[in-house]
Amino acid sequence: MPKPNAFYAQSGGVTSVINASACGLIETARKYKNKIGKILASKNGIIGALQEELIDTSKESAKAIAALRYTPAGAFGSCRYKLKSLKENRAEYERLIEVFQAHDIKYFFYNGGGDSQDTAYKISQLSKKLGYTMTCIGIPKTIDNDLPFTDNCPGFGSVAKYVAVSIREAEFDVASMSATSTKVFIMEVMGRHAGWIAASAGIATNLGDNPYIILFPEIPFNQTKFLARVKRNVKKFGYCIVVVSEGAQYANGKFLSDSGLKDAFGHAQLGGVAPVIAQLIKSNLGYKYHWAVADYLQRAARHIASKTDVEQAYALGKAAVEFALKGKNAVMPIIVRKPGKRYSWKIGEVKLAKVANVEKFMPRNFITKDGFGITKKCWNYILPLIQGEDFPPFKQGLPEYVKLKNILVPKRLKKKFKVNL
Amino acid sequence: MPKPNAFYAQSGGVTSVINASACGLIETARKYKNKIGKILASKNGIIGALQEELIDTSKESAKAIAALRYTPAGAFGSCRYKLKSLKENRAEYERLIEVFQAHDIKYFFYNGGGDSQDTAYKISQLSKKLGYTMTCIGIPKTIDNDLPFTDNCPGFGSVAKYVAVSIREAEFDVASMSATSTKVFIMEVMGRHAGWIAASAGIATNLGDNPYIILFPEIPFNQTKFLARVKRNVKKFGYCIVVVSEGAQYANGKFLSDSGLKDAFGHAQLGGVAPVIAQLIKSNLGYKYHWAVADYLQRAARHIASKTDVEQAYALGKAAVEFALKGKNAVMPIIVRKPGKRYSWKIGEVKLAKVANVEKFMPRNFITKDGFGITKKCWNYILPLIQGEDFPPFKQGLPEYVKLKNILVPKRLKKKFKVNL
Repeated sequence: MPKPNAFYAQSGGVTSVINASACGLIETARKYKNKIGKILASKNGIIGALQEELIDTSKESAKAIAALRYTPAGAFGSCRYKLKSLKENRAEYERLIEVFQAHDIKYFFYNGGGDSQDTAYKISQLSKKLGYTMTCIGIPKTIDNDLPFTDNCPGFGSVAKYVAVSIREAEFDVASMSATSTKVFIMEVMGRHAGWIAASAGIATNLGDNPYIILFPEIPFNQTKFLARVKRNVKKFGYCIVVVSEGAQYANGKFLSDSGLKDAFGHAQLGGVAPVIAQLIKSNLGYKYHWAVADYLQRAARHIASKTDVEQAYALGKAAVEFALKGKNAVMPIIVRKPGKRYSWKIGEVKLAKVANVEKFMPRNFITKDGFGITKKCWNYILPLIQGEDFPPFKQGLPEYVKLKNILVPKRLKKKFKVNL
Repeated sequence: MPKPNAFYAQSGGVTSVINASACGLIETARKYKNKIGKILASKNGIIGALQEELIDTSKESAKAIAALRYTPAGAFGSCRYKLKSLKENRAEYERLIEVFQAHDIKYFFYNGGGDSQDTAYKISQLSKKLGYTMTCIGIPKTIDNDLPFTDNCPGFGSVAKYVAVSIREAEFDVASMSATSTKVFIMEVMGRHAGWIAASAGIATNLGDNPYIILFPEIPFNQTKFLARVKRNVKKFGYCIVVVSEGAQYANGKFLSDSGLKDAFGHAQLGGVAPVIAQLIKSNLGYKYHWAVADYLQRAARHIASKTDVEQAYALGKAAVEFALKGKNAVMPIIVRKPGKRYSWKIGEVKLAKVANVEKFMPRNFITKDGFGITKKCWNYILPLIQGEDFPPFKQGLPEYVKLKNILVPKRLKKKFKVNL
């Protein structure tokens, strides 16, 4: 008798270790052939399920699946598509259940951030209501590190490592040139709402008096105070390093990146807080500057991923399958920091009902009183998460990442479903 | 009897391997204590010599000097200060000779790009004229890869590797998101005059029909052709990757980055061609985009340096000392590509008189006919230069780069010298 199939989807912005979770999940599920049939991966996130585009992962070799552990981004495609509420678009949820039924899917694994955990929760509720028994497990993922309950989110540790390594290297560069040239280096990092990523630059500092200024979304931007600190850092250290979160904002909630840059035709220029900061410094202090915007490079940089992060991402994918087979439902495995001086962690769990749509911001005591740096508490929290290197294999000078075949299973439903993108 | 001292200075923009040349030079010189006294490093490039700020490298441990091999940027400081012509400012040259005499410096090693080789040449000429016998050796260095005679320039291979690795990773990211989100990713790289760095992104492609567009300074920007190609790539591949050189320009020589971006106060916004390209695409094609500017990150990224590049940089520093001890003068060691299918190289030499102030641009046959990619010829040239990894040691999750003590020797001249910066 064929075993019921499992569904797996990647959701939201990808990370350098979300495929490590997929690897943990698929490798573990393959060990339970007596309980799980095929693992069907949704093409381009949940949209694939709505459109009945399901990838047959059994067509991929063990070697290809193993390579997911060191391949960045979303191997099956992801999407930024948030299901509406049941009330607003019940048809979408019903379509999903229909597709799951048609493909004998009894396990639903959803790998994403807060919105995705909310979706997973809704699906678990609805399937129960519709009498279609299905096990729903969420798998955490987000570079933003803003999911509650879990000590940290897979994806974050690797971005943190990238940011800390990159800014340390750039600082060495600026320090060598500052006597006669660049005095201020500005690096923009991701984090629209929470400053976790910007905070990780603090790991490159000595925590004492240092040339860094970190601009968090959590701390309203004060231009006068900021410029005074830049000036003081240049005077004292010869140079100043500014790490600014894309979400840095004024007290009134206006993003610094919306500072009214216009092109020659008067169109508003979109995005980029680093050049805005650079302009501020140039206009007010006259220092020579350089700026960088890491953008996707930071979340795709698998070559400098944190080994801890990779291991945790893998373990969470594995745990998701194990949870499902133990009969758990509507839960999400999480990372639990064990007590003790030496960092160690284990897998815990939380109910999806609790995790859905809750954001975790940086505690105020993780940020220094002046608002420009991180405290020892924050340092102690982030440092273990960037530990260890896990370099991918290289071939001809480049990382040898895998591209899967991504073969779809034949459709079983006649009805097509229109997704409004 | 004390042996004559050697002088070493780093010049111009730093790289992730210029310290590897310093390492090769100092380690080799230390082996010839019967011929070379101290190696005095100029603080902040040639300015240190003018101001008689000379670092006593004998105060650094063998371990610290060995660590230079894997430490990015300029350990003794660098500068962007070009000596004027002998006619315009003879006083500067005379001051240098005066400082060298006062510190019994008989070996002059200058590690830099084209301008620096010109300076080294002038000093060799003047010291001869003034009757102060001194051996002058240039050591090539520039990420721009624009020095003549040498097959390639140390610093370039590592930037090329960084760019190729980063854009491959970003491409994986965009490919996963493009169905519903970002369609175009733009990455700005260095290279004001020559497109070598932008070209290295071509290593991440298959050389065949591919989603990449590379914008070289050597190829006048044609907006209509460019936008048509972006559209075609998005239609064909689902996304488009644009790698743009900071020096990309219109046929009339105007930089794309000077495209008239103004802030809210009407000030011209400085720098950044990536947002200009992004705006073009947004306004004309409406695609969702993301952009990154790597800036200093690319030339400081020692963590992903090319092993070939590190070995060559070290070998050139070593060769400089060996040349000097063999009685060669006014020369620069270079990298010579040996014939044969498998890449191999040796050290050669060229007279400084020949190398001074000559720039090497990309040959037209390294760029595809349409101007948007690289040819197999270019691929064959760049690929060997990014081979091998040479990861630095890591400690607590971060590369363990060295900071030298940089202790100055006591001044011996009463006269101060004012440098006009």
